[in-house]
Amino acid sequence: MTSEQRTREDELVERVVRSFDACPDARLRELMTGLVRHLHAYVREVRLTEREWATAIDFLTRCGHITDNRRQEFILLSDVLGVSMQTITVNNEAHGDATEATVQGPFFVEGSPETPLGGDIAGDAPGEPCWVEGTVTDADGKPVAGARLEVWEADEDGHYDVQYDDDRVAARAHLHTNDDGRYFFWAITPTPYPIPHDGPVGDLLAAVGRSPMRASHLHFLVRHPDHRPLITHIFVRGDELLDSDAVFGVKDSLVKDFEQHAAGTPTPDGRVIDGTWSQARFDIMLAPA
Amino acid sequence: MTSEQRTREDELVERVVRSFDACPDARLRELMTGLVRHLHAYVREVRLTEREWATAIDFLTRCGHITDNRRQEFILLSDVLGVSMQTITVNNEAHGDATEATVQGPFFVEGSPETPLGGDIAGDAPGEPCWVEGTVTDADGKPVAGARLEVWEADEDGHYDVQYDDDRVAARAHLHTNDDGRYFFWAITPTPYPIPHDGPVGDLLAAVGRSPMRASHLHFLVRHPDHRPLITHIFVRGDELLDSDAVFGVKDSLVKDFEQHAAGTPTPDGRVIDGTWSQARFDIMLAPA
Repeated sequence: MTSEQRTREDELVERVVRSFDACPDARLRELMTGLVRHLHAYVREVRLTEREWATAIDFLTRCGHITDNRRQEFILLSDVLGVSMQTITVNNEAHGDATEATVQGPFFVEGSPETPLGGDIAGDAPGEPCWVEGTVTDADGKPVAGARLEVWEADEDGHYDVQYDDDRVAARAHLHTNDDGRYFFWAITPTPYPIPHDGPVGDLLAAVGRSPMRASHLHFLVRHPDHRPLITHIFVRGDELLDSDAVFGVKDSLVKDFEQHAAGTPTPDGRVIDGTWSQARFDIMLAPA
Repeated sequence: MTSEQRTREDELVERVVRSFDACPDARLRELMTGLVRHLHAYVREVRLTEREWATAIDFLTRCGHITDNRRQEFILLSDVLGVSMQTITVNNEAHGDATEATVQGPFFVEGSPETPLGGDIAGDAPGEPCWVEGTVTDADGKPVAGARLEVWEADEDGHYDVQYDDDRVAARAHLHTNDDGRYFFWAITPTPYPIPHDGPVGDLLAAVGRSPMRASHLHFLVRHPDHRPLITHIFVRGDELLDSDAVFGVKDSLVKDFEQHAAGTPTPDGRVIDGTWSQARFDIMLAPA
């Protein structure tokens, strides 16, 4: 590249950055000038062709046109580029051994039904019964009583209740830890499912040879006034998708043993149920607020 | 930031980059991994909050929903961030004194009417008459005969013909240089106009204190089989918008004198026309193909 060419490219970056000098909001100015510097650095580094630029415009347009109240292709795009997970990581700074956060995903719903300790969140969602238990503690290891846990998951067909044709609520509930910080409930054994991949993001994944599958997981949102809210999942040890989760949500510390039990094995709450069931333990340490 | 936090952020970037290892198209892999590295660097550098991330998702969604066959908000976004102009700059490397390129804009239409040398491209577009002339040469300064020039511009109300309610063609034509490489035609004196700013990109410009106005300009697309195609504008010296063009299209070398003439002054083609008129010269040097 000639020095004249480099000068032209440099000067353009600085001119665009200066155009934000009058921005009255310092944070917005920081966000916009940082975005400009990185976008321009990218275009210059890869020597983006005009055809590639046009392809990108067309891709974003397709993402916009498939997005509606039920489908959010830009979030999927952010997810498969790891941008959602990086944002979560930046906003949940490591704090000692506090439990790590991961992506919230699009299927959380406020206002879930409350379940007593030991209750079954599955409702009529199909799947193998799974006993989940653990203790919520603070950063010093002291039990946190009255923490509110929201839990939600897909059924064994890979569907969340909000994807059902009707308004049933299933595989979704909230409960509170007892005075010992303990919680326990019945759910269903997590199974893998694909992110929506019949749109432009699915086309992108296919073009780059990536799978749209998410590793099996169970969602948690844990809230207590004295502590930093924790949005996370637990994953199933041995799941072959752990290394290729489409949205990069897996953290080693969140992979748990889901012990399998034969039909007829008595359950932790002293019942005998039809068929196999599984059991997982997830102890949660909350960072300070 | 703790080293544990830095490690988590670094590892996430590398995990996402590795997810493209199996991409069968080396250029696509380069484009995607470069994009991932810059997007993650941006999120980490500005410590993007989850609320800001959600605002960005919402902004892109609004851009998608306003975009249709007549409105392209993603191109406007690329334009006001200078990304379009940087892409043009990267793809038109400096070549000696060859004329600089600038943005094409959304208003070019293939299949414009042909005008003979000295003809009037204005049609019924309102505006002050403007005589434009120049010579097209190669990089050695030798005249280029038979170069095809497409010229198009907004009328004095700031509208291109494609923005009219009917299908009239106006202020748009093509012509060819003569054996001396010369060209000359009547157009209208360029006047400023805003880019569409009633959507999310307009909201962004307002929030950062920027104007949506484009500096006055006349578009050229110059093609000849032996030379690199040139897409450019000329701008009007003295226009107060030269330093704040909404899409960063202005280059010093493209700012030209538009000499003003009083009513009754004989024109270069020996006529006397009603009212004032202007005159500009634009000599064009093409880079080799």
